[in-house]
Order: sequence, then structure tokens, then C-alpha cells
Amino acid sequence: MIVIGIDPGTTRCGYGVIKKDGSRLSLLAAGILSSTGPDAPSRLSSLASHLKEIISLYHPERAAIETLYFSRNQKTALSIAEARGAILSVLSAAFLPIQEFSPTEVKSLLTGSGRASKHDIITTVELILKTKIKGVDDICDALAIAILAAGM
Amino acid sequence: MIVIGIDPGTTRCGYGVIKKDGSRLSLLAAGILSSTGPDAPSRLSSLASHLKEIISLYHPERAAIETLYFSRNQKTALSIAEARGAILSVLSAAFLPIQEFSPTEVKSLLTGSGRASKHDIITTVELILKTKIKGVDDICDALAIAILAAGM
Repeated sequence: MIVIGIDPGTTRCGYGVIKKDGSRLSLLAAGILSSTGPDAPSRLSSLASHLKEIISLYHPERAAIETLYFSRNQKTALSIAEARGAILSVLSAAFLPIQEFSPTEVKSLLTGSGRASKHDIITTVELILKTKIKGVDDICDALAIAILAAGM
Repeated sequence: MIVIGIDPGTTRCGYGVIKKDGSRLSLLAAGILSSTGPDAPSRLSSLASHLKEIISLYHPERAAIETLYFSRNQKTALSIAEARGAILSVLSAAFLPIQEFSPTEVKSLLTGSGRASKHDIITTVELILKTKIKGVDDICDALAIAILAAGM
């Protein structure tokens, strides 16, 4: 089974695609969804278009995305919600079952502690996928979410 | 010139399509974007899919959408922001220039008063389009936004 995980952000949305073969999980692809453009709407359509490409390339059978934590900064929260809207619309149009995990769920389900550090998440993801993860936190969170949706 | 206006809501997104011929504005279509489905992601993809249909049917050359007013109810605001994300992504993918208007701008630009009532908006829209508007407030707001984007 192939699973795609997505960590939506204001400027960067990480994605990770993993494969579950029996009890073994392996990394297929990971990166940042392209969101280029002169304004918010064109960045959203760039995001949606890149996600469609990844889906048609890896044919995931399941998707998972991080929920929005309620933020004191409403502008940030609304901007992430708009990115989530564009992403969820694409995932659902591709008929993928979607699971959602909160940041705290990701930490506690993956490491056993809701207070796990970024470093703990990275170490656990690398241990499970048996590979070094290049790049930034967003990618690691996206892979963590994919791992959870794959049933670890 | 053909203009589409959209008023995004949590459960209902109104749309209105108008035509500008010289200084004359007329109604082409108006209604509620279909957003059916058992969960939020499928309702978002239904919304996006219906909007794509309307665009391919009427070929608007310009789009306008209501901005999100900052709400005390963050759950409502995030839900509308997700709908806006799915909508903006579709509008931008169709290469439509997009204008955004706040609810207060709609009132003051259309009627001359930021405190205009729903009834004032409906009366003004009907006067400009020289037709009775059937249906609900969301449709009238969508048409009001389209009228503003068409330069009245």
C-alpha cells in the first residue's frame, strides 16, 4: 500500500510518499509542494497542480494531512486553512481516503510522547524508514503523518 | 465581458455570473455551488468540480470573491477559509484575474453606505441587473461582488 502524507504550512507544504510492504515501510518520495506565483490564488493553484502530479506519479491509495492547530495568529491560521482547502479538494477528487492528525497526535502516536522534540520525530521517522531524511522539518512531519496513516 | 462573483460560506457558497455590455450589466446565471458529500474533503472537491463546470459553461474573463472577515468563531472562519482555498485554486488555474472585496466594501461600494442592510443590497442588485433575484442572500452577495468587479 502506498500512502501520501502532507504537512500544510503558510509558505511551505511538505509531502512524503511511503510504501508499506507487509510490516516494512519504505520511502518513495519526499519534498516541498511547489507554491510559486505572484499572489495567493496562483500559489494555491500551483500547490494543487503539483499535488496532482505526485498523485499521478505514485498512485497513493491513502492520504493523511495535519490538522490545523488553533492559532493566536488568525491571519496565519486562515492562510494555512486556504492551503488545506486546495489540498483536501485535490485528494478527495482523486478518491483517496483521508485521515487527519493533530500535531500532538503525530508526536504521541509516533514517539509515545506528546512532548517529543523535532529531533525525536526525525530520529523516529529515520529509524522506521531505515533512511536518512534530507531537507527540512515540514518533510519529516509529512513522512511522520504518512507513517501513522499506514498503520506504522 | 463576463464576470463571476463568489460568496464563500461554511455550508453554502453562492455564485453569480453577469455580462457587461457597454455600460449595461445583465444576469447570466446565479445559484449555490454544489457541496455534497459525507465529509469536508468531499464537499470541497464537489465545490471545486461544480465551479469548474460553471467556468467552462460561461467562460468568465474575471472573477471576484468575498474576503473573510475576522471572526470570533475560529472554527467557522477556518471552514470558510478552506472553501476559499479550494475556490481560489480553481479560479487561478483557469487564469482568471481575481479581485477580493470585504463585506463592508461590498455594502459601501454598492450602496454608498457600509451599514446597508441585506434588503438594500438586494434592491440595488435587482435595480442594476434589471431583474428579480430569486433565492437566498448568498446569491445576492455573489452578484453584488460580480457587479463591483465588472466596474458597475
